[in-house]
This record gives sequence, C-alpha cells and structure tokens, in this order.
Amino acid sequence: MLDILRRIVQEVSSVTELSEALKVVVARIREAMQTEVCSVYLYEPDEKRYVLMATEGLRQDAVGKVSLAGSQGLVGLVGTREEPLNIDNAPEHPRFQYLSETGEDPFMSFLGVPIIHHKRLLGVMVVQQRDSRQFDAGEEAFLVTMSAQLAGVIAHAEATGNILHIPQTATEPKKSTRFTGAPGAPGVGLGTGVVISPAADLSGVVDREPESVEIELERFDLALEAAREEIRSLGGKLKGELRPEEMALFDVYLNMLDDNALGAEVKVAINKGNWAQGALRQVVMEYVGHFQMMEDAYLRERATDILDLGTRILAHLQGNEATSRPDDYPHDTILVSEELTPAMLGEVPTEKLRAMVSVKGSSNSHVAILARAMGIPTVMGAVDLPHAQLDGKDLIVDGYRGLLFSNPNDELREQYYAIYEEEQALAEDLEGLLHQPAETLDGHRIPLWVNTGLITDALRSRDRGAEGVGLYRTEVPFMMKDRFPSESEQQEIYREQLETFSPDPVTMRTLDIGGDKALTYFPINEANPFLGWRGIRVTLDHPEIFLVQVRAMMKASEGLNNLRIMLPMISNVAEVDTALHLIYRAHVETLEEGFKVEMPEVGVMVEVPAAVYQIKDLAQRVDFLSVGSNDLTQYLLAVDRNNPRVADLYQAFHPGVLQALKRIVDDAKAEGKPVSVCGELAGNPMGAVLLMAMGYDCLSMNATNLPKVKSVLRGISREWAEKLLEEVITMESGEVIASTLQLMLEKAGFGRIIGPNVGLN
Amino acid sequence: MLDILRRIVQEVSSVTELSEALKVVVARIREAMQTEVCSVYLYEPDEKRYVLMATEGLRQDAVGKVSLAGSQGLVGLVGTREEPLNIDNAPEHPRFQYLSETGEDPFMSFLGVPIIHHKRLLGVMVVQQRDSRQFDAGEEAFLVTMSAQLAGVIAHAEATGNILHIPQTATEPKKSTRFTGAPGAPGVGLGTGVVISPAADLSGVVDREPESVEIELERFDLALEAAREEIRSLGGKLKGELRPEEMALFDVYLNMLDDNALGAEVKVAINKGNWAQGALRQVVMEYVGHFQMMEDAYLRERATDILDLGTRILAHLQGNEATSRPDDYPHDTILVSEELTPAMLGEVPTEKLRAMVSVKGSSNSHVAILARAMGIPTVMGAVDLPHAQLDGKDLIVDGYRGLLFSNPNDELREQYYAIYEEEQALAEDLEGLLHQPAETLDGHRIPLWVNTGLITDALRSRDRGAEGVGLYRTEVPFMMKDRFPSESEQQEIYREQLETFSPDPVTMRTLDIGGDKALTYFPINEANPFLGWRGIRVTLDHPEIFLVQVRAMMKASEGLNNLRIMLPMISNVAEVDTALHLIYRAHVETLEEGFKVEMPEVGVMVEVPAAVYQIKDLAQRVDFLSVGSNDLTQYLLAVDRNNPRVADLYQAFHPGVLQALKRIVDDAKAEGKPVSVCGELAGNPMGAVLLMAMGYDCLSMNATNLPKVKSVLRGISREWAEKLLEEVITMESGEVIASTLQLMLEKAGFGRIIGPNVGLN
Repeated sequence: MLDILRRIVQEVSSVTELSEALKVVVARIREAMQTEVCSVYLYEPDEKRYVLMATEGLRQDAVGKVSLAGSQGLVGLVGTREEPLNIDNAPEHPRFQYLSETGEDPFMSFLGVPIIHHKRLLGVMVVQQRDSRQFDAGEEAFLVTMSAQLAGVIAHAEATGNILHIPQTATEPKKSTRFTGAPGAPGVGLGTGVVISPAADLSGVVDREPESVEIELERFDLALEAAREEIRSLGGKLKGELRPEEMALFDVYLNMLDDNALGAEVKVAINKGNWAQGALRQVVMEYVGHFQMMEDAYLRERATDILDLGTRILAHLQGNEATSRPDDYPHDTILVSEELTPAMLGEVPTEKLRAMVSVKGSSNSHVAILARAMGIPTVMGAVDLPHAQLDGKDLIVDGYRGLLFSNPNDELREQYYAIYEEEQALAEDLEGLLHQPAETLDGHRIPLWVNTGLITDALRSRDRGAEGVGLYRTEVPFMMKDRFPSESEQQEIYREQLETFSPDPVTMRTLDIGGDKALTYFPINEANPFLGWRGIRVTLDHPEIFLVQVRAMMKASEGLNNLRIMLPMISNVAEVDTALHLIYRAHVETLEEGFKVEMPEVGVMVEVPAAVYQIKDLAQRVDFLSVGSNDLTQYLLAVDRNNPRVADLYQAFHPGVLQALKRIVDDAKAEGKPVSVCGELAGNPMGAVLLMAMGYDCLSMNATNLPKVKSVLRGISREWAEKLLEEVITMESGEVIASTLQLMLEKAGFGRIIGPNVGLN
Repeated sequence: MLDILRRIVQEVSSVTELSEALKVVVARIREAMQTEVCSVYLYEPDEKRYVLMATEGLRQDAVGKVSLAGSQGLVGLVGTREEPLNIDNAPEHPRFQYLSETGEDPFMSFLGVPIIHHKRLLGVMVVQQRDSRQFDAGEEAFLVTMSAQLAGVIAHAEATGNILHIPQTATEPKKSTRFTGAPGAPGVGLGTGVVISPAADLSGVVDREPESVEIELERFDLALEAAREEIRSLGGKLKGELRPEEMALFDVYLNMLDDNALGAEVKVAINKGNWAQGALRQVVMEYVGHFQMMEDAYLRERATDILDLGTRILAHLQGNEATSRPDDYPHDTILVSEELTPAMLGEVPTEKLRAMVSVKGSSNSHVAILARAMGIPTVMGAVDLPHAQLDGKDLIVDGYRGLLFSNPNDELREQYYAIYEEEQALAEDLEGLLHQPAETLDGHRIPLWVNTGLITDALRSRDRGAEGVGLYRTEVPFMMKDRFPSESEQQEIYREQLETFSPDPVTMRTLDIGGDKALTYFPINEANPFLGWRGIRVTLDHPEIFLVQVRAMMKASEGLNNLRIMLPMISNVAEVDTALHLIYRAHVETLEEGFKVEMPEVGVMVEVPAAVYQIKDLAQRVDFLSVGSNDLTQYLLAVDRNNPRVADLYQAFHPGVLQALKRIVDDAKAEGKPVSVCGELAGNPMGAVLLMAMGYDCLSMNATNLPKVKSVLRGISREWAEKLLEEVITMESGEVIASTLQLMLEKAGFGRIIGPNVGLN
C-alpha cells in the first residue's frame, strides 16, 4: 500500500501541469482500489463551487464544465463537514444531487474525502462503484492518506499559478498573484522585473576529444583570465557601496579562479583528453555535486557560487559575453533570479536597483547579508516562484514579510506605493530627529543603540543617531571568509567598529555560529540546529577559538576602552563561570603582551528560557544583561519562524513572552544590573513602548528602525506607556494584544510610523 | 584556501587508519603552507605525554618513539595554554626543549596550535621553518582551521578504537572500550556478542542476460515464496511475545513481498532481459536509493527494511539459507548488527536474548519500539561501533544511557552485574508492593499511572500495579501502519486499551507526529522539527484527521466512559478553543450515530515554555493539565538531548526547570484543576519525590519504574520531601541539585533503588 502510494506521489510530482497530475491520480487510484469511478472536484472559493477537474469512470466531456454549489450534493456535504462520507446507496441519500452530464446514475456506493491543506479545503476526492456496498476501512484509510498527499501537490500548483480556473468572462479583472519567500532585507520596492539567468548552460556541454591539447589549454587560460577580469570589474563597481572587508567576498571568487584551485583541476582534465568546455563542466559539476549533497544549508548554497563561476568561464570559452543581461536596466529594476549571487548584484547600477528576489537561498545567503547592508529590499527563498516568466512584469517586493506580487492590481499597487512614499518621506522627516535624544514627554530618557554586523551598518547607524552598539555580530566577518580569521585580522576588523563609535560603547557578541548560521569551513550538521551546538556551546568546547577572539577584541580596544563583551546562548551558570575564567585569562595575556587595556564589561544574553528563571544568579556574575528577544520568543513558543508551516504561531506579543520579559527586567533591577533588549521587538515601535514601560535601560535595533522608534518615544509619556503595558499584559491572546497596541498607537497619532502592521512578526 | 582545506579533509576521511591519516595531513599541510616541517603530537592522558605521531621534515624514525612530558618544550606550552604559539626564534625561547632524535635544531620559526575536540586537548600540530620569521596571520589562521577539522577526525578514530597508543608493556591490563549510542530500551544486559549481518551482498550482484526468461521468472517466484514463508515463520516465533496489533509490522513486510509491489517490478525487469538476481538488485537498489535520499530520518530508516527483504530473497535465489546466523545462540546472546530489523529480533529465542545493539537507527526505529515493549535492553545508533569485530566478544549493554562496553574489565563487569542482579532482585521484592497504595509515611496518597503505546505495555502495566494511564501515545499504532488507520481500525485499537484499564482512566493524547516522530506515509521535512509542525499544529491543520481520531476514541469508550483526551504542544489559547470546538462537534456526531458516550474529560499538555505563563487561561478552558517534562525541559534549556554534542546540557534538575514545574502546579491549584506529570522525571524516584512535594496530583511513568517510585514514596514522609524541595529549589546549579538529591535519598536508605545515577538525564 505504502508502495502504491509512494509510486503515485512520485509519478504525480514528475508531472508539471496540475490537470495532467490529477488525471494520473484518478487513473491510478481507480486502478489501485479496483473500483469503477475516481474523480477530483476542486473548490473554487470565489464562486463557492466544486468543479469536476478530473475523472476516470464519469464522462470526460464533463471535466471543467460540471460544478456544484458549496451546499449541493454529497460532494458539498463532504466539503462542508470536512470529513469522509462512506455510503452504500448514494441515490437514496437526502443530499444526493443528480448531474446528468456526468452519467453517474448507475453508481450506488460513494466514498468521498475532503482534500485539506493547512486548514484550507481545496476540494473533494470521490470513488464510486456500481455495487451497493460500503467501502471497507482499509479503502477509506487509503483514500484519506492519498488525499493528504494530494493536498500538498495541489497547494504547490496553486502557489505557482499553475491552477485551473473555471473559465471566466473576458472582463475578469487582472489578478494579482502573491508568492511567499523569506524576508532577506527589509523595505518595499515597486518596479519592473529583470530576470537574470546564467549565460550558458554548463550542464549541457558534451565531452569531446580536443584537436590540440595546447590550444584548449590556451583557450581555457584566456577564458579564465577574462572571467577573473570580469569579477574584478564587478567588484570595482561595488567599491563605492561596500567597505574593504565586505569586498572580501569577491576575493573568495577570485581565489576560486586561482590556478591552484579550480583552474588546475580543469587543466588536468584537459591534459587527460577533453576539450576545455568539457573539462570545465566535468570539474565544476563534480564540485557542485559535492556541495549540493552536503546536509548543511550554508554549504549547499556555496554550490551556487561555484556554478556561477563555471558558467562565466564557459561563456568566455564560447565567445559570448558573460551575461544575458540587458545593456540598459530600467530605472526601477527588480532583479529576479533563480539564484542571486553577489556578482549579479554588481551588474545593476545601484541607483536603478529597487529590490531583489531569489528563488533559492535564505536570509543567511551572502547576497542577503549584502542587501541588508546596502538597504535593498530583498526576498529570498521564494521556492514556488515561476521566475522565468517575470521578465518585464510589474512587480512589488515586500522585504519585510518576504512577499512578491506579480501583476499587482491598482489597489495593491497604490497601497504599497503609499508605504514606499511614506518610508521616503518619513526618512526625511525623521532626519530632523538625528540630534534629539530619545526622551518621553515626561522626561524619561532611554538610549537607543544599534545592531551591526558589517562596517557599512556601523556607518549608516552613526547617520541615524545611534548612541552605541548593543549587538555587534562577530560571526558576520567570519562568514565572509573561507577560514577562521586570525587574531590580528580580527583585531583590525573589531578596531574599525570600535573606532567608528568611540567613545560610545560597542557590545561585541562572541562568535555565535550554529543554529541557522554556519561557517563554510566549520560545518555542523544536526537534526535540530536551534536546539544544538551553537553560540557559547561551540566556543566553550573550542577555547582556542574563544581566547583568540576575546584577545583580538581587547587588543582592538586599546586606547578606546569602549568594548563590552556579550556571551550568547547561556543556559546555566557554569557556562558563565567558565567563560569569565577564559576572559580574565585573555586579559592577563593581553596585558602581558604589552597592550594597555582595561578589563571590559562582560554581559550575558538572555535568550534561552531557563535563563529567565536564573536572572539573579546570572546578574551576580556579570556587568549587564541583554535579551535576545527573537530567539527567546522562538524557544518560548517552540516555533522556528523560518518554517512557513508554523511561522504564524510566532507571536512577538504572546502573553508568555511579555511576562518573561517583565520578569527579566524586574529581577535584573533587583540585583542593580542594567538590562537591554537587542532583538527585533526593540525596533518595533509598539514593542519599544512596552519595553520602555517595563523598565528596560536601553534598546538596540537595526539602524532602519531607530528614527521611527525615537519619534514614537518622543511623542508619548512614560506614564501612558505604563498604563498601556498594564492593560495588555493580562490579556490572554497575543493577537489581541498586538491589535490593541496597533489601535492605541494609531489613536495616539502614530499610524503613519507604525504602518500597516508591517514587521509585526 | 577553502578548497585546499576541503580537499585535505576529504582525503583524510577516506583513509581508515589514523596513522595513515596523520601522514597525509602533515604532508599536505607542509605542501600547502610551503614550509619545511609539519608534525602532529598526540596527547596521551595516561602518561601525560605528547607523542610525535607523524611528521614531514623531522626524522621519520622518531615517530612513535619521541615524546615530551606535558610540561616540556614549546609543544607542552601550546597544550597547556590551549592557544597558538607563533615565534620567530624557537631555540631562544625559555621553554625550548632540544630533542636530538628529531633533528629539529636547524629550525628557527615555530608555529604550534592545539588540537581540541569538545573541550578536550587531543594534541598539538606544529609547523617549523629554517628562516627566522614569524608565520603570518593567514598561515596561523589556516593551521587553526585545519586543527579544528583534524580534531573531529582524531576523536572519531579514538571512539572507534582505531587510535595509536604508546607501546605498552605486555602486562598492560585489558582495556575496556566504551561506545556511545542512544538509549533504545532501558535495562542492563551482560553477555556474548552475536553479530548478525545480511546473508548476501545484494549490491555486488552483476547484470546478466538470462538464458531463459521463463526459468528466471520461475526461480524468482520460488525465492519470493520462500522469503515470504520465512517472514511468516519469524512472525510466528514472536507471536507469544507480541499482540496482534504489533504483529502488523510483519504484515508490512509481507505486503512488500506482494506480487503487486516489489515482486511485480522485478518481474518487469526480468522480462526486459536481466536474470532474476540482477533484476532484484536493480529494483531494490533503486528503492533503497529513493528512501536514503529522503531527508526525513524515519523514511531513511525504511531503506533498511527494504534492503533486508531484498537480501533475504537474494539468499534464496543463490540457494543459501537466508541467514548467516548461528544455528545455536549462546544463552546470553547480545545481538549486534549494523542495522537491526524487527525480523532479526525474531531469529533469537527470547529466553536467550539479553540485549541488542544497532549501529544505525534511533529510539524511533521499529525495532526499538518492539524492544521496549518486550523489555529487552537496547542501544541504537552506536555510529562509531566497529560492529563486525564484536562477534563472540564479552559485551555489556547499558540501555538506560545508550552505552556499550566491549572487553569490560572485572571491575566494570562486577559493577554492571550488580546492577543487573539488583534489578532482578528488586523486581521480585517490589512485586510485594503490587497491591499496596503509593502512600507516604504521613499518609499522603498519590496515584501512580503509566505511559503506554503498544497494548503489550498496557498489559505489563497492569502487572506492575498501575492505577490508570496518564499518557497513551496514539501515534504508535499510526507508526506501525503504512497508511492512516481508518476510524473503525482506530476504534478497535483504542477499545483494547480502554478495556484493559477499565474502570481506571486512560488518557489518550491526540496524534503527536512531527518532531522526532514521523509517519512513513505522511513525511514532514523541516530544518528544526522540534520547533516545527508537530502535535496539535498538524492535527488542527488537518481537521479531517483529528475528527476521525477523536470520534474513534469516543466510540471506543462506549459503555466504559474511562476516556480522557489530551492535547499535545499547545502554545496558545486559540489552539485550545479550536480543538475543543472540534471535540464537541465529534461528540455530537458520535451521539447522532447512535453511540451512547459521555463527553470525556479534556486536558492540555504543558510542554511549550510559553504555556507555563498561561496556566490560568488554559486551566479555565479544560478539565486537567499534564506536564510533558521531557519536551518542556528541552525547550527551556534549548537542548535536543538526542544530539550527543549538547546532550550533557540537558539537566533534568536544572533550577529553571524546577521553578517552572513549581509555578505550573501552583497556578493550576489556584484554578482548582488537577495537574500531573507524564515525562521521565515522574519515573525517576528523585524527581517523583520533588514532584509529590510540589503538590502534583498524579505521576505517570513507564511501567518499569513504577514499583521503584512507589517503594521510595512509601518510605518517606511528605514533610521530609517538602523540606528537601525547599532546600534544592534555591540552588543555582542543576548538577549540584542532582547530587544533593542523590545523597539525600541514599542517606534515607534508597541507594539500592535509585542506583548509580542511572537514568538521570
């Protein structure tokens, strides 16, 4: 049975057209169940009707034509009740509806099961039989199982726009289609799709015996050099945008093109008797295969970089330009690609680039990190996107929520254009706040800090009026390298951050890899990475890495002394004790080496729920506490918000989350230790109001949100905020809390700033 | 650089001997860094010395001979400090130690890095150079990266016993080797290893043109029938042990052998012109490949079942017996296999089977589920086990902690034999308690319930004196099928459970799949399954599955009315409201169908940390609460305890966990609702004492632990327990709490029952 099921699902998955897939399904099920009729009715929500989409056993000419209202017939009953219906005499059932077009009158037995995907009814699947007998339990279970599988297939087809609609009249308004991905970089972009695809199809190259090995080697050298030159020039174009440290990405590419690496292997293959193109395909595909097979998501993504490189070289070998890109980009380019690479980003003049969309990749792809640093709205991992069809299309990118709309109707376009304009206008208005303190109407002052990773962030943050860095993610420079950066390399990178903000404090989090952040050169494969070896757990297991990093931080702070060190993922006091011991030791060693640095403040991140219960014990050991509200919320709710299946269960304003946050600040205050929040909640104006009311000493956020938060805090009194907090914290539903906050802030005149519920979860 | 690194690691991984691997490493590193010397010294903890294990550039005859004390030389300095040392004039360093055997005098520059794996120093890697110059930052970083990678390789070699030791004297005592896996079924077993391996090597079969297609078809039919007969007879052997419902596993096998499934495909392949053996290989390997490529762990494991089947058929085709198993098993057989299958379990007479070990698989493999039901101590997933070498060896299996010891020394054997004997004796002694209530010396009575899944569990539980079922895992019968069981099939299974315990209550948890529990026919692939689509999240998205299950439960309870329904993975109140709505509807429908059943009590599981903050809101909605302490602890600590890298961070007595548990019971009492615990903590005598003291109304545990817990509770007063709780709950370390509890219970005379810290985490 499992076997039949698997075979049907496999067969169906290999069919691209939904109508074809349904045909296969009904045929195979009829065969497997040895019954006479199998049909699928899909539910059309606009019309509220079930349309016969495929059948084996009823009349074929009824397909696509016959439909039943939601309340009609046995099909409607199955759909309404969302339950299987198994009866031996259908025509006698009070709800039976006779449809002459289908020729179903002679069938007595009827078994119908609903097709449901994530709570949504997609349709009904029916088997029928001439004999009057109930289908048995095994048959019923088989059809239910098939239906659960089929639901996924239909939902996918629907998402990719490959769904059959009931023929509509010609005046049907243009339909907007919405595609879902992951937020890559915040912001809204409206514009024209420009699809970039790799220039040549590397995988299609055939093997061929070379006429002359020498000539092939020479050709390859020329192509290699041309590709190298191209990468260099792309890097050059981005030079104004990126700091040297970020440009290191392009060095990674250039290194791959090195004669000792990829190049050398291709030459070996040529010498063994393949022409340059074939040898290139052979070597590149082997590499790509290696990487794609890796379980680690980050490493799998590196396959993209290599394929991109190989394709560039191939283009030169074939004598093409390396690009199938237009010479001239529209002024409102929205870059669309199956796999965006940092190199592609360099192709479009920045002033013309409104947004980007990638079918593959995640918010941790190199290109997403760069997009955030450059402020380009980006959606990653839009897996259901028919990207090849989007060239020249009207598109809207919502980088806050990870959405893409194609062919937006006027209403949607106006709505998003309003957001876009508001953002621009607001940004200008908020510039006036640059030198104003974040102070409430009743004189309560709360410092606003920023979260940074690249040095670009740091510079932008200064422009936005940040008074310090609450979270510097040291893993970002680690992710941009192809090996552990050495102590002196780290020292240089950290120095730049510390200098940019001096004399304001910079809080450096020690290396926080694992979870969804992996290093190419230090892969970690786990079944549940968020509950695995990550953050302090990794670095305490590798004191040699921890000590080098801490010393580099301390050396970098010489003469500035604005460094604070923060420990991620603390789940018990022993971890803090061990880390402190190593930090003291690193300090002694740094002094011994002749550096004159004060012992920096050390703090812990509160992001593991158990730490919420140990604030007192933790606070007694360190100088400050900082709440990582994103991870804390994920753990408290047991929700991985990168997982679209459960993302809507991630509620930033869940009562449990708010109560935990309140307890943290109360317990920290009791010990007299400062406590801040450095998660996204702090950068959400509604969240910032609550956190200020709870008594948090400092809020750290992305630079983009800082002016908005400041503007709201300057417009309210602390007393008002405290009352609001008191009101919502006893509510039992996170959704109700969120909408109450929305309403209250709109009433207080901040509707423009908090926007249409954007960035809520 | 990444490329060189990757290539070295790949090359090293393909070498099986550690000494060879180290040779490769030093040669490649010397080449890559273009330096003159590269050496690896491994640390021998018994001798506290660094032994030169491989070198390129120093004298080869020094390898394995030269060693340095821990405090000697620059190597010792690197090891002690656990930090890189990079100096330009080694001979002038005060710690320099001249070793004439190595011929290292002419080398001036010295760069040494520690090799560390999970906090443990394994050795030191050194590069040297004639010129007096410091190695640059890039070189240092490269060596650090290499060392982090190498650490994993060495640790693995060590775990598999493939490590080089300093030559020892002949009188060296026999060394016990310890291997780590996952607990599959609790208990301790001592005995003789019997390695079962598949009879024939299917993958080695070649394609061949058949002399006669007819003859090959006939041969195949005979082999198929023989294999079918074999499976049937294996199933027959287990009939006394297993209930019909569990025997369904063997039906799955028989179904696969069906002519319409595997068999039909092989015949097609034969007809296309391959002999029977080749056709079989072709079809089976294709299936295995499909399954192995699946990301879902459960599905990957199904590849084993298919390979096992194919191999059985092949054996018959080749005219062998299907087994390479001994005719006669030793009386103390410990079954060892690369992949244990349920069929293998049937090969050994139960009275001779002491324990089992599998290299692959997990605690969710079919065989582990059966082993728990049959009470056979089992270790799964012992990935580093050199299983082929264990035949006839003395072995000890610790199924509590997932450990295997080969060649145990006398001390270890005595220790474990004592545990084994204690268990047997204790079991007999505790039988006397069967009809005694679980009541403290001062008259506090607390019902002890059991957790069940198979009907076998339920029967054993009755024998142990359970007064009800606190957790019936309905997913277990779902996992034993190859499709969703139908409503009437479910009804029958549930009826058996309810009848076995009637009139005592049976708490049925609604389908809790996802996380680490998957259904073959309903695969879920997620990056973080524990934070994903699981428990109530799945069933609320599929109301058709939920409704069928709830109706089956209600119908099964007709005339008994001892059913309680429990909802898993609740993280907000809206989920409870939706589920209650569906349950009421199912009740109405059940009544409409003519069943006379009362509305059962409904409760929620508290296992998501956010629920701890909402006890009041939850308690107002339902009839009872039950704490799933395993998952709650995992989420509170952000630790997946199946992950060996972080398993030691899972602390059952973490102060945060205890405080959360106290809060739950206090808040539930305030609402007047009963609250129980159904995680492993309840079955741990120390945990049970604390939970009783906190005020929990009922404890539910595995049947095995029930008599122990009862015995302890009957030997203490509630007052004593409350004082103990008061003392430990303010402690800041989970480890200190655990050892305090251990000590206090030993002092109170329960040392024999709580054992040597077994089952603590």
